[in-house]
Amino acid sequence: MTAADKQGRTILFHSPGSDKAWPVEIQKAFPAFKVCTQFADAEPGDVVAAVVWNPPPGMLEALPNLRLIQVVGAGVDKLLSNHLPEGVPIARLVDPGLVARMTEYVLMHSLALHRQMPDLQRAQRERRWTYLHPTPPKRTCVGILGLGVLGMNCARSLSSVGFTVVGWSKSRKEELDFPCYAGPAELDQFKQQADIIVLLLPLTEETENLVDENFLATVKKGAALINVGRGKLVVDNALIEALDAGLLRHAILDVFRTEPLPVDHPFWDHPKITVTPHNSSSTHPATALNQVVGNIRRALAGEPPQNQVDPARGY
Amino acid sequence: MTAADKQGRTILFHSPGSDKAWPVEIQKAFPAFKVCTQFADAEPGDVVAAVVWNPPPGMLEALPNLRLIQVVGAGVDKLLSNHLPEGVPIARLVDPGLVARMTEYVLMHSLALHRQMPDLQRAQRERRWTYLHPTPPKRTCVGILGLGVLGMNCARSLSSVGFTVVGWSKSRKEELDFPCYAGPAELDQFKQQADIIVLLLPLTEETENLVDENFLATVKKGAALINVGRGKLVVDNALIEALDAGLLRHAILDVFRTEPLPVDHPFWDHPKITVTPHNSSSTHPATALNQVVGNIRRALAGEPPQNQVDPARGY
Repeated sequence: MTAADKQGRTILFHSPGSDKAWPVEIQKAFPAFKVCTQFADAEPGDVVAAVVWNPPPGMLEALPNLRLIQVVGAGVDKLLSNHLPEGVPIARLVDPGLVARMTEYVLMHSLALHRQMPDLQRAQRERRWTYLHPTPPKRTCVGILGLGVLGMNCARSLSSVGFTVVGWSKSRKEELDFPCYAGPAELDQFKQQADIIVLLLPLTEETENLVDENFLATVKKGAALINVGRGKLVVDNALIEALDAGLLRHAILDVFRTEPLPVDHPFWDHPKITVTPHNSSSTHPATALNQVVGNIRRALAGEPPQNQVDPARGY
Repeated sequence: MTAADKQGRTILFHSPGSDKAWPVEIQKAFPAFKVCTQFADAEPGDVVAAVVWNPPPGMLEALPNLRLIQVVGAGVDKLLSNHLPEGVPIARLVDPGLVARMTEYVLMHSLALHRQMPDLQRAQRERRWTYLHPTPPKRTCVGILGLGVLGMNCARSLSSVGFTVVGWSKSRKEELDFPCYAGPAELDQFKQQADIIVLLLPLTEETENLVDENFLATVKKGAALINVGRGKLVVDNALIEALDAGLLRHAILDVFRTEPLPVDHPFWDHPKITVTPHNSSSTHPATALNQVVGNIRRALAGEPPQNQVDPARGY
């Protein structure tokens, strides 16, 4: 008997709304297993791996022989807010496609902010020919809050087109080729540099409401904000007040406290806010499948998964 | 007596509205010369080099000992439409700063078109949360019309972020790492590939009104246009009709037949047109001065300038 024979033979895929190719491809990779897309179709004791996005409360706890919780995304804040079975490793996706799309989004909006596109679009609406001199990207400092895989890749891409880049992370990163600040004590130094602040932090107890009135009071005058992290990193009213007071010149928001953004939310028609529908990036089976399959194989072999989440840390 | 002693000792700088640093820096580079910023201050027979942008008709012909006409920009169509002194070499700027700014502009707008920002901004104005799936840039083919220094650099930059790139030029280019079409006979093949068409052609008799009703009738359905060449490359009414008919989905226009764009021009409030005030790029003394100084030195030494224009060809 091999190790695999002693364990369950069901893989539960629960990610409503995801690409239909996911369960099909997982089934192809594990022909000897049963892949269920409905909890009701699975025998709980036979489920060895759960591939999930926003699982309903209690679902994962009902699986006594689970060896892996694989999240089909980069953020695990919602998952960790549930009760979870103890001792089962949780893995998140660090999908090269997800990283690439996010990097393109941040690059596009950093260029647009650097080249003052919001002002030029306002001028167009008013039929005003307002010449604004194009300047080199190196004169704009993009500050990246959060230096995980996404933040590091954004830094690389922004540097390659000439932007000045600074970073901030919770714990100090070594041997970076751009200035980097660490911990709460150095956040102000970071903010004094950044003309564009990119939020790429995970949502944890420490980061929730980080961008509040106090944070915004000490940004570089006229800085811009790009939030591609989580809506709850930002206090909505404080953001609007900072824009209205001219502390910030513009905000690009892809994530919100409530999604879809409610139709009566003041962000929609604020002249200094660009809203995108949480489409800065997404996970595709084409680029992410190998990682999911690899982690299921590791779980079956009794090995820890790649990109394992530390629930105490929150990411 | 050296060669320099036998020739004039005046450099005429005529580029109203340019950075004031230009004549100051040229004077520093040629301390033994007189740098005039007004034609009236110069003795015509003493002018050996003219550094100009839009010189008044007749000015250059009044300089009998001129050895160099250096244009402070990349486009020479306006200059060549004047009578010019025969046998005096004309040079245009191929300024690394100008190339870099143009490349950033084309990259920014190609990303924005690829990521459907015009549609997302329309959705925002209507408070509609319309999720559009982010796709890899390789699925968008950017076609560059005109493969001079600007076009080639845009191709390199677009390729480096993952776009599919095709090019078209008047005469065939060899050993490119992207598909390239040449001459009028292959223009349709180019157009069948391009999801975004970037106009980077010089304005000549052959290219004037190139983007007319016929051209637009055979673009790839729903293609987008970026015009950073010259306003007269495009027939304004034909462009509006193609946008209204859905042949084109959006146009980003930085150059116009009349600049500033007249306040009553229909481009201003067309929902599928983005207007920028001819600021896709510009020339800066910081990056372009070396080339101007070098060309004046070459002229004084009896050598042809770099980036010499062929008046018969038009660029």
